[in-house]
Amino acid sequence: MIDQPWRRSPEQFAAHVEQSLEWVVAHMRAAGSRSPWSPLQPGELAARLPNGPPDGPVPLEDVLADLQEVIEPGLVRWDAPGWFAWFPSNAHPDAILGDLLASVTAQQGMLWASSPACTELEGRMLEWLRLAMGLPERFAEGGPGGGVIQDTASSGVLACMVAARDRATDGAATQRGAAACGELAVYASEQSHSSVLKAAGICGIGRDHVRLVPTRDDFSMDPRAAAEMMSKDAAAGRRPVFCCATVGTTGCGAVDPVSDLGRICGDHQCWLHVDAAWAGTAALAPELRGPVVAGAEDADSWSFNPHKWMGAAFDCCCLWVADRRPLIDAMSIEPEYLRNSATDSGGVIDYRDWHIQLGRRFRAIKLWLLLRCTGVSAIAEMVRFHVSLAARLEAAVEAHSHLALTAPRSLSLCCVHHMDGDQATQRVIDRVNADGRFAVTHCRLQDRLSMRVAIGTLAVDQDTVDALIEVLEEGDPGPEAASIA
Amino acid sequence: MIDQPWRRSPEQFAAHVEQSLEWVVAHMRAAGSRSPWSPLQPGELAARLPNGPPDGPVPLEDVLADLQEVIEPGLVRWDAPGWFAWFPSNAHPDAILGDLLASVTAQQGMLWASSPACTELEGRMLEWLRLAMGLPERFAEGGPGGGVIQDTASSGVLACMVAARDRATDGAATQRGAAACGELAVYASEQSHSSVLKAAGICGIGRDHVRLVPTRDDFSMDPRAAAEMMSKDAAAGRRPVFCCATVGTTGCGAVDPVSDLGRICGDHQCWLHVDAAWAGTAALAPELRGPVVAGAEDADSWSFNPHKWMGAAFDCCCLWVADRRPLIDAMSIEPEYLRNSATDSGGVIDYRDWHIQLGRRFRAIKLWLLLRCTGVSAIAEMVRFHVSLAARLEAAVEAHSHLALTAPRSLSLCCVHHMDGDQATQRVIDRVNADGRFAVTHCRLQDRLSMRVAIGTLAVDQDTVDALIEVLEEGDPGPEAASIA
Repeated sequence: MIDQPWRRSPEQFAAHVEQSLEWVVAHMRAAGSRSPWSPLQPGELAARLPNGPPDGPVPLEDVLADLQEVIEPGLVRWDAPGWFAWFPSNAHPDAILGDLLASVTAQQGMLWASSPACTELEGRMLEWLRLAMGLPERFAEGGPGGGVIQDTASSGVLACMVAARDRATDGAATQRGAAACGELAVYASEQSHSSVLKAAGICGIGRDHVRLVPTRDDFSMDPRAAAEMMSKDAAAGRRPVFCCATVGTTGCGAVDPVSDLGRICGDHQCWLHVDAAWAGTAALAPELRGPVVAGAEDADSWSFNPHKWMGAAFDCCCLWVADRRPLIDAMSIEPEYLRNSATDSGGVIDYRDWHIQLGRRFRAIKLWLLLRCTGVSAIAEMVRFHVSLAARLEAAVEAHSHLALTAPRSLSLCCVHHMDGDQATQRVIDRVNADGRFAVTHCRLQDRLSMRVAIGTLAVDQDTVDALIEVLEEGDPGPEAASIA
Repeated sequence: MIDQPWRRSPEQFAAHVEQSLEWVVAHMRAAGSRSPWSPLQPGELAARLPNGPPDGPVPLEDVLADLQEVIEPGLVRWDAPGWFAWFPSNAHPDAILGDLLASVTAQQGMLWASSPACTELEGRMLEWLRLAMGLPERFAEGGPGGGVIQDTASSGVLACMVAARDRATDGAATQRGAAACGELAVYASEQSHSSVLKAAGICGIGRDHVRLVPTRDDFSMDPRAAAEMMSKDAAAGRRPVFCCATVGTTGCGAVDPVSDLGRICGDHQCWLHVDAAWAGTAALAPELRGPVVAGAEDADSWSFNPHKWMGAAFDCCCLWVADRRPLIDAMSIEPEYLRNSATDSGGVIDYRDWHIQLGRRFRAIKLWLLLRCTGVSAIAEMVRFHVSLAARLEAAVEAHSHLALTAPRSLSLCCVHHMDGDQATQRVIDRVNADGRFAVTHCRLQDRLSMRVAIGTLAVDQDTVDALIEVLEEGDPGPEAASIA
């Protein structure tokens, strides 16, 4: 193959993978060896890369050396035991292996005909998860709805909002444009994810027409306020078309009252979407499931991200719809070059019609590996363990003289503030992040700064959480120290 | 770790990868051993999978056995030497290895702060490709525009259409909704990709307001017709906001006159987007570059999919914009929980604001591996080889007594019809697909059925193309045989 320098034999590939495993193992073992945050300043990594592409091929050992020298310092250790920032983005080894098989098999599952395996394994994996999580029959494989993998929850909420917009306008929004659809409105709590606003801007409803519904003391959506806002809009000629209920908000893990919202949405034929991106994984543990799936039987769509807590490796968002027709109507376009006898028969699922993209990766195979090699009960065990660690932190905070929980602990997420106010809380956050073992981020709850401690990486252990508690108990350096900084 | 059954040590992971490599190598070696199409009927694969998830963990060897027995028959061999269907979706071994490293490092690059490596390597890889492809300075890293990886060209065209819609309406479309924006219109040729219609439906412009511009004899967009349509719309109060020029249409690889369209779009302040999803890779070969990048200096955005011909493994679409501001304005939302000092400084790129999604995978690393371990000149060699194979097929068709090219050969794509009409062409397609060594799809050009032969998998060789030519030369079974079927 000297005259075909672009080719690499399967044996060469296997040798390259084996050669890389030494770095991979060392990298994985070092997850807790430095601060989870990157030490680099903006531009530092780019400055160490050549300005232009290399002339010719370099040996893999050179690339692996650069991986360690140049790239590694720019990595953030999302896999560190002390990673408590944002939400976990776990890549379980079984899922990593599954994703490797997805690359190796090089499926492009836009149509059933372009990959029966990608299509049918996906349908079945969504059904496995539906059963394992106790989600209602209305989302079942083979019914009028079904499940699909989206890349992220943001894409999923956009696809559902477009479907809802079209259901409410008999398809006029997609066909004739939002300008021809009159006035529409979308609802989500003040604590909902930014993706709702983003989707409303993208799909032509407009960010101004997203009603950010006030929340109750526990930061969950106030259903009475939602009902009033919908009625007021409807009376003014603006149609409620989409409501996003969050199960486990990004800020503090609040759980919106899905059942109540189902009833209210029913009054307005408003699409109810449930975003359980992070918390959904907890439904795998039967004793934690109740609040997570409550009301799902009234939802038009329900989603969670196995790439977060569950370990399916970014990206992988599972979305179920009760009725796939509005989604397919909004997303389907059949150009001649994609016509085929399987599609024409009407007897197969073509997943290109379930999302924004046309092409799609074989993501189901990483779920298959994870669910079989690790299994549902082990993942449920992990969830329980993480929740118990958060309860340990919760107890320490409750016993603390200067710290308090800003919101009730939600599963494995604790939000903590200093009783002396935001400046003192900021000092706590800075101290934790400066320690070198931990990473935390913040949120604002009722205009109070709060430190978010989202427990849930695969590597987290009790020692690490106890070490965090110790740092918190070391106390506050006081306003004098802060004024020097 | 007996009491933590969800954990897998790095060494166990490495052992699992090594254990899987035997299947991987055998699978890769067998790329040409059966028909590229799956032999399965709809539902056959699903019927061989359990209805619900397994109770507990199973050994990897069981999963690998099922991979071969249950999953393999449902795979379509997009990697076969005789895969000429749709466009190639190549997963080069170097890119597969890079993607494995993306999973292992588990970066989530939504913000610079959440992964400086993901952010800065991506900026640099887009710059390497810009230089290697001869794309204009206006898309350069560090200028007012820049490059970003989107998952697919469909997402890229949607993001650009939204940015264009907002640029034309001073942001009113995103803020107040499309209903408040008056009348907008989008332009693309009759041969353009379905993603343009899909995006117009999603973003509230409406499919009815996509003008499918007639094409010339070579199936490229007629610029005079485009100019007339835009002027007519503008005179009627409908604003031309977005024009998609295709470099290498899906049907027959036609190349729209980008320079002409740049001038016409300039008259209307209409955003010009170039979709070179498939053909873009050819710009890596200097002698093929001219028509591929022609007019790029007049484009507002330009994209191609390294996951197609170039081998970057699905999914990976590179998009450059001349001015990133309208894109960021349309996509940016900053909730408190994503605020951080790097973003607040204004001195970093946060790629979450460049696309639909919030989260993002570390895709740049597979480009880095591929560009370094294989290199630009080897990939250019591959492109040249594939073009030479297509020229070989072209010559055979031109010499054939009953076959003809339906459109001029475009790079490595030939569209072929039988002179006796569509039924005869369908018989040719069926014969090629039934042979067992090849996969082809079809398109319609001026209402004539045509067999698409898209040459370009990593494994394609002259023997396979010669074997296809031989099958074509075996002649037509004639109308009698067809009437029996």
